[in-house]
Amino acid sequence: MIRSETKLRVRYGETDQMGYAYYGVYAQYYEVGRVEALRLLGFSYKEIEARGILMPVVDYSISYKKPAFYDDEITVVTYIREMPKGVKLPFEYECFNLNGELLNSGKVVLVYINKSTNKVTAIPSWLEDALKPFFSPK
Amino acid sequence: MIRSETKLRVRYGETDQMGYAYYGVYAQYYEVGRVEALRLLGFSYKEIEARGILMPVVDYSISYKKPAFYDDEITVVTYIREMPKGVKLPFEYECFNLNGELLNSGKVVLVYINKSTNKVTAIPSWLEDALKPFFSPK
Amino acid sequence: MIRSETKLRVRYGETDQMGYAYYGVYAQYYEVGRVEALRLLGFSYKEIEARGILMPVVDYSISYKKPAFYDDEITVVTYIREMPKGVKLPFEYECFNLNGELLNSGKVVLVYINKSTNKVTAIPSWLEDALKPFFSPK
Amino acid sequence: MIRSETKLRVRYGETDQMGYAYYGVYAQYYEVGRVEALRLLGFSYKEIEARGILMPVVDYSISYKKPAFYDDEITVVTYIREMPKGVKLPFEYECFNLNGELLNSGKVVLVYINKSTNKVTAIPSWLEDALKPFFSPK
Repeated sequence: MIRSETKLRVRYGETDQMGYAYYGVYAQYYEVGRVEALRLLGFSYKEIEARGILMPVVDYSISYKKPAFYDDEITVVTYIREMPKGVKLPFEYECFNLNGELLNSGKVVLVYINKSTNKVTAIPSWLEDALKPFFSPK
Repeated sequence: MIRSETKLRVRYGETDQMGYAYYGVYAQYYEVGRVEALRLLGFSYKEIEARGILMPVVDYSISYKKPAFYDDEITVVTYIREMPKGVKLPFEYECFNLNGELLNSGKVVLVYINKSTNKVTAIPSWLEDALKPFFSPK
Repeated sequence: MIRSETKLRVRYGETDQMGYAYYGVYAQYYEVGRVEALRLLGFSYKEIEARGILMPVVDYSISYKKPAFYDDEITVVTYIREMPKGVKLPFEYECFNLNGELLNSGKVVLVYINKSTNKVTAIPSWLEDALKPFFSPK
Repeated sequence: MIRSETKLRVRYGETDQMGYAYYGVYAQYYEVGRVEALRLLGFSYKEIEARGILMPVVDYSISYKKPAFYDDEITVVTYIREMPKGVKLPFEYECFNLNGELLNSGKVVLVYINKSTNKVTAIPSWLEDALKPFFSPK
């Protein structure tokens, strides 16, 4: 399993007039979470794009339990729970506030796009190789 | 059934370096869509809040089929498919580009919060009354 | 002079916990305004980029007089007041609410970047030709 | 003088199709910068609002020298250069990338609004007292 934690602070511009962190802002928080999870593999998402692979989102779902408020420090926990198969890379998420309360949980599925053909492609071997050690049987 | 159509144009600031409308921007597009759907009932979301009801999102899911690009005109089709029951108000969505291609489809579920108690509440009678005619048996 | 009017409605996600349209959102509103102003010339900003010219912002200033609120309809008035000279294209702005109150005024200066060299360049002749008729002496 | 440094990483959703951090995103970066500058005074902006003072922006200007790119770590340096006088609190800014290159510099002026009267007010004495030590003659 891959598990990473990222801390983010809710910006004023991310709140709405309810005083909540806007429901749409978690797409960015989750994106920051998965970028940090990928960094554990030894390369950044920036390098992945530089190697000719784009990874757009094909599915995104989120369940909101509690709101976050301005200036709250949020912990985004990002998981890749299983060795990804086929053309999809699924991430799972949980966001917590400083009291340890679960704010929301969600899932984001990416696909691999070959930048030169603009088509969905199998997982690149270098990405597969980097992922494998995290899911090896002990 | 309630069905409304809203047109939006992808702003430059809504694109990302893939050249796509960022996956997170549809939370705003869907929000604009449901505001326009509610306007068909005879009042704005602004008035709903003024009457003491907040309607935060508790569930949001979206499946992306095709990207939208800068300056594309997007049609957001918003549905309330059934007379809502209990404390939840579910909206369904489809986004199309000018070629009529389905870009994404999704679902957003709101709850009613009583602003003074800050607790989930049943649907206000004035909202229920406004909704009913759209779901009456013919 | 070039003068264009664009109407925008303040989205929920654009408000902050003061209940104002967030001060940062006007960068997007102004961008939408200048895209519409350029459309008066007979081409979109999208086509300008397709012709190999990027136009990033080098200066941006805004003075806020009154806030805009959720669901307010805002009129963005965009001006190119003089035939642009040299490598810069300056836009001026005024935003009004439905009561005709001035919300803010500002200025944005763009430069022309040659996409292939990534360097600042003189105004392309086709853009100069499209602009000239708006500033011809009568 | 008050001087604070804040580090931010450019998020994917903050880029635009030029591959730059969108020009509008610096309003948020500067906001984060001044929140951290105020924290040096011993209270958060959140507490300032809780004490009944809102501080909306009345003037904002920024000059862009170089773009920031996805995943770049940006240092936002925030200054209050002089003991503020009257009803305005001016902040100055510089943003740098990891190579120490100046990306942009700017200025944001806030005013104090009394939340209960919704009118511009003089600097609250507790804020003035917290600021003074930073500007005392040696």
